[in-house]
Amino acid sequence: MLSIVILGTGNIAKHLVGALSKAKEVRLAQVVGRNQEQLLWFSGFAPISTDFGAIMDADVYLIAVKDDAIVEVSKHLSDKKGIVAHTSGAAEMDSLPMENRGVFYPLQSFTEGRPLDFKSIPFCIEAHRKQSAEILKALASRLSDNVYDIDSQQRKKLHLAAMFVSNFSNYLYGVGEKLCLEEGLPFDLLKPLIRETAEKVQVMPPKEAQTGPARRGDQKTMQAHLSLLKDEKQIELYKLFSEAIKKVYEEKL
Amino acid sequence: MLSIVILGTGNIAKHLVGALSKAKEVRLAQVVGRNQEQLLWFSGFAPISTDFGAIMDADVYLIAVKDDAIVEVSKHLSDKKGIVAHTSGAAEMDSLPMENRGVFYPLQSFTEGRPLDFKSIPFCIEAHRKQSAEILKALASRLSDNVYDIDSQQRKKLHLAAMFVSNFSNYLYGVGEKLCLEEGLPFDLLKPLIRETAEKVQVMPPKEAQTGPARRGDQKTMQAHLSLLKDEKQIELYKLFSEAIKKVYEEKL
Repeated sequence: MLSIVILGTGNIAKHLVGALSKAKEVRLAQVVGRNQEQLLWFSGFAPISTDFGAIMDADVYLIAVKDDAIVEVSKHLSDKKGIVAHTSGAAEMDSLPMENRGVFYPLQSFTEGRPLDFKSIPFCIEAHRKQSAEILKALASRLSDNVYDIDSQQRKKLHLAAMFVSNFSNYLYGVGEKLCLEEGLPFDLLKPLIRETAEKVQVMPPKEAQTGPARRGDQKTMQAHLSLLKDEKQIELYKLFSEAIKKVYEEKL
Repeated sequence: MLSIVILGTGNIAKHLVGALSKAKEVRLAQVVGRNQEQLLWFSGFAPISTDFGAIMDADVYLIAVKDDAIVEVSKHLSDKKGIVAHTSGAAEMDSLPMENRGVFYPLQSFTEGRPLDFKSIPFCIEAHRKQSAEILKALASRLSDNVYDIDSQQRKKLHLAAMFVSNFSNYLYGVGEKLCLEEGLPFDLLKPLIRETAEKVQVMPPKEAQTGPARRGDQKTMQAHLSLLKDEKQIELYKLFSEAIKKVYEEKL
């Protein structure tokens, strides 16, 4: 049985607590956070507290707060013997001041109130002590089938990669929506394509999955497309992507 | 019962024939194409021919060839009484020389050998004659639950929107894969995130679904990310997206 204290009351804290509460051999010892209102949500799962001076003893402390608050929160844990791990993709493990430190990073986009299949979420684990890494990995494997040893350098790169595949793709979905609305068409028209594009790369490399005029070097269609765009950012994106895609397949030849 | 002749032997032709062969009140009269080898695939579904001078009579002729071959193929149909429709997102309906012309455009990314749920594919229908539009819509509704009246101007914009949400997103997936491989990590790590990002916009607008440092205006993380990138195109994309995303949420305030 592993006892866990969660620090933080945001989105990731909620999703983690929801999943941990159903996990075997895990006991949620406490949830600690400043936001009293948010904290109430957790009261059905574990004892709650707003007092960072009254954190209970536990095997693992998971810090699930904004990146720039991690160090401050961790100071309240400097006397604890358990493993202190943050859950951030971008923060260094070594930003934590204690010796028994680690990282417990679930690589997924968490949305308030939207349930997720935790079993498929990749957990990126790192710890200063080898034994602590084993404990964090054991904890992660009670939530997910995808547990990885990922060091801080790798994790930063992953977090950056996540920006490209998630934040930037989502922006492109927004451009698609805008172009639909300009013609009085519902965004629904693009949804099956968006889904299929994401599903395709689950089973084939993006390079193989690529289609469209830029891959074919179809200048006529690309010129026609550009003439339809008015927004400067959209034009820039169109040109940049078309060149970049073209380059990938020129290299291939 | 509607009789259909398919012109072309590529990806879209294969998917359409597969779906039409299972549709009610539809008879595949013939598949015509130049590529004898590809044509053999169709022999289990309909009579096949390489002879564009021997096209059978039918209610609907669906031209499923590359955009720049549509006009040439359509010339072989100039004496036909049935509806001649192309299946392209980018070509004008009026590029077809006959009076009884139309468009039968399934808005999806078709991959050889990869089955699709046709019921969810949006079919974009246009026809010069009102009655022909009704027939094409009736045909589409035997394949899909999502049939739309879409004129040539709207369709061009949709095709452009499809580039953004599909071709460009897929390129971003490729960037993500590259960044993983640079760190010796499998692309698998990003797959659940890619899927969830696409699933989120099925039920919420992209603007609400947006997360990440650019939305939060988190300069520190963005600078750290930029320092990790070496590829010039990736740096350009990172900057362009970050600015564009920032702008969306500034406008909102």
